[in-house]
Amino acid sequence: MINGLVYLDNNATTACYQAVVESMMPYWSQVFGNTESIHQAGRKASGVVEQCREDIAATVRTRPHQIFFTSGATEGNNFIFSSYARTPAVRKRVAVSAIEHKSVLKAAEALAPLGFDVVKLPVNTDGIVDVDKARMLIDDSIGLVSVQLANNETGVLQPVSDLVELAHEHGAYFHCDAVQALGKMTIDLQELGVDSASFSAHKIHGPKGVGFIYIASGSMKFPFVFAYKGGGQEHGLRPGTVNVPGIVGMATAMRMLPSDAKIHEMSELLRRFELGLVASGLPCVFHGDRAERLPNTSNFALCGIPADMLIANLPTLCISTGSACNSQEVAPSDVLKAMGVSDDEALSSIRVSLSTQTTEEEIDYAIMEISRATSRLKELLS
Amino acid sequence: MINGLVYLDNNATTACYQAVVESMMPYWSQVFGNTESIHQAGRKASGVVEQCREDIAATVRTRPHQIFFTSGATEGNNFIFSSYARTPAVRKRVAVSAIEHKSVLKAAEALAPLGFDVVKLPVNTDGIVDVDKARMLIDDSIGLVSVQLANNETGVLQPVSDLVELAHEHGAYFHCDAVQALGKMTIDLQELGVDSASFSAHKIHGPKGVGFIYIASGSMKFPFVFAYKGGGQEHGLRPGTVNVPGIVGMATAMRMLPSDAKIHEMSELLRRFELGLVASGLPCVFHGDRAERLPNTSNFALCGIPADMLIANLPTLCISTGSACNSQEVAPSDVLKAMGVSDDEALSSIRVSLSTQTTEEEIDYAIMEISRATSRLKELLS
Repeated sequence: MINGLVYLDNNATTACYQAVVESMMPYWSQVFGNTESIHQAGRKASGVVEQCREDIAATVRTRPHQIFFTSGATEGNNFIFSSYARTPAVRKRVAVSAIEHKSVLKAAEALAPLGFDVVKLPVNTDGIVDVDKARMLIDDSIGLVSVQLANNETGVLQPVSDLVELAHEHGAYFHCDAVQALGKMTIDLQELGVDSASFSAHKIHGPKGVGFIYIASGSMKFPFVFAYKGGGQEHGLRPGTVNVPGIVGMATAMRMLPSDAKIHEMSELLRRFELGLVASGLPCVFHGDRAERLPNTSNFALCGIPADMLIANLPTLCISTGSACNSQEVAPSDVLKAMGVSDDEALSSIRVSLSTQTTEEEIDYAIMEISRATSRLKELLS
Repeated sequence: MINGLVYLDNNATTACYQAVVESMMPYWSQVFGNTESIHQAGRKASGVVEQCREDIAATVRTRPHQIFFTSGATEGNNFIFSSYARTPAVRKRVAVSAIEHKSVLKAAEALAPLGFDVVKLPVNTDGIVDVDKARMLIDDSIGLVSVQLANNETGVLQPVSDLVELAHEHGAYFHCDAVQALGKMTIDLQELGVDSASFSAHKIHGPKGVGFIYIASGSMKFPFVFAYKGGGQEHGLRPGTVNVPGIVGMATAMRMLPSDAKIHEMSELLRRFELGLVASGLPCVFHGDRAERLPNTSNFALCGIPADMLIANLPTLCISTGSACNSQEVAPSDVLKAMGVSDDEALSSIRVSLSTQTTEEEIDYAIMEISRATSRLKELLS
């Protein structure tokens, strides 16, 4: 419990680890120089940032020159699409899965007025991008494919390796929004074979406002025009004064990524949660549970109970109807709709997402509270 | 002295105030929710951010709906140019001053391959944009004008009000990179009349990686297509998980902006520095000193002494050759060149920039050290 709340919305954001906060402390007012400055204060700062780059690179099995610091995954995703759009003579068609985060989906759709076609790769009822259908849709007219590693709403893992192979067969570039997968599974970017991937620190108990983009080619051989302009930071790929404390905090969080054992523990807690819900007699329909999923994410409909109403009746429980980025609007989730879930069922759907800090007590409390609120609402609505 | 260094490079970046660091503390791991989440943790976070927005808006004499949080001024400047470029049927010519920061200059130049003309507004030998020449260059073919409030290398203030009037006479939009002026003079954005202005927290003893853009029209009437895509944060104008601790830290720094008395104190220290240099018999040529300048910035040539060599011989003094964003390259400053300074003199030029934390002792130490190193180098080079 934090501030009297049980927080089970870790796919939206996480609390910083205490070690993350502590690691940033020297970099606010002591080692505070601008990494680009050639004096001592600048060189100390850039030394620290380069150490962080090395450590972060190793964590996702890449090399330091492939890591570029950003303000987060939304920026990383926009960077790829904006850079692509600015590059002369690229192919005029791009493909994204139908269940991408809005920062990919809308960034892709924004290319349409610039003369690009956007192809949507459909998912099956388990929430997995259909590779056979993708095979029919991806041809030599497509220059950029972007598919996430794991879905933010259902936690369902995507067949990225297969899709990378398919894209590369046709000479297309492959970008991966990997933000939700980080910290919940081992990520080997080299093995995955993607051309780029974006990440945010705040999903793994790091600070908000900082992230990184992996670019396989490095900056020198990046095939597109850099979308953002300014100083020479990050080899010109990402201008703007480097966020030293944020990067230090992110590197700490990356060094603390959970072990396989800890990930297994999370999946056991998730299982406890789902079995507990069923055992308490709730009319649950789980989404994506037949697929390989992240060990922390459960998405389920409590049919007949509007999810926003349920959440409003759970004041001590922090859970969500889906992506935080869309939670201000009451509309059925696009992700669930793409999986063939009806509007009614989608509007009754809840996402619960655990973290490495989640406890058994919190899980049991959540089951009890959801069960209690559901019964109360059922009576009211009947 | 911080870590045995005298830091006089505050136009590059500043040390966070202790109060800034302390104000962020509750927002790392306690009130850590995603501002877009509808549960308690989310609502607490968004409440805090809206309070910060109000306080920041008041500080620059604007209203909260005109303030949008970004990762900093480089992003803010890029946002305007990228948004402009994405908007159908805008005028195909833009104008920027010849002495803009790279994040404006290069963002403007990047429009050329997209079919835009970029007009450079020249400056006089004092480093001030020449309004008469601007009058001849800005006509109805120009849709966007961008001029900084104060130059980052010389501190020279620009005739923004006059240029706004001129731009508006011709129906052009006016953007202002105001990052260097903040905290060094009173800024009344409404009175200034600009259509937008960008800022970074790290220039005013706030955290790195956060800033804001003022947009006079608010988001609803913003005349261009939003360049960045994603979730609905910042009314869709700036998607991406909101950096709550960063915004809290920035708001603290904004509430602590120096009083007129404190600004006067800074200008007295600057005077002490410049008079001290002259008194020590150094062959100084000051740049922009006949113009109205920021109270913290001195730019001068020590003719015959290469600036990078001088800096390398001042290991305990943090000063610079110009913008930190360009300091990795040894080339004469574009700003000084635009003022008619010769390459040789530009390559001998140093920027010293004070902060509210600078002391008399630090100033006297700097004079002594610069004088000592200059004499030593003169002997070596003669």
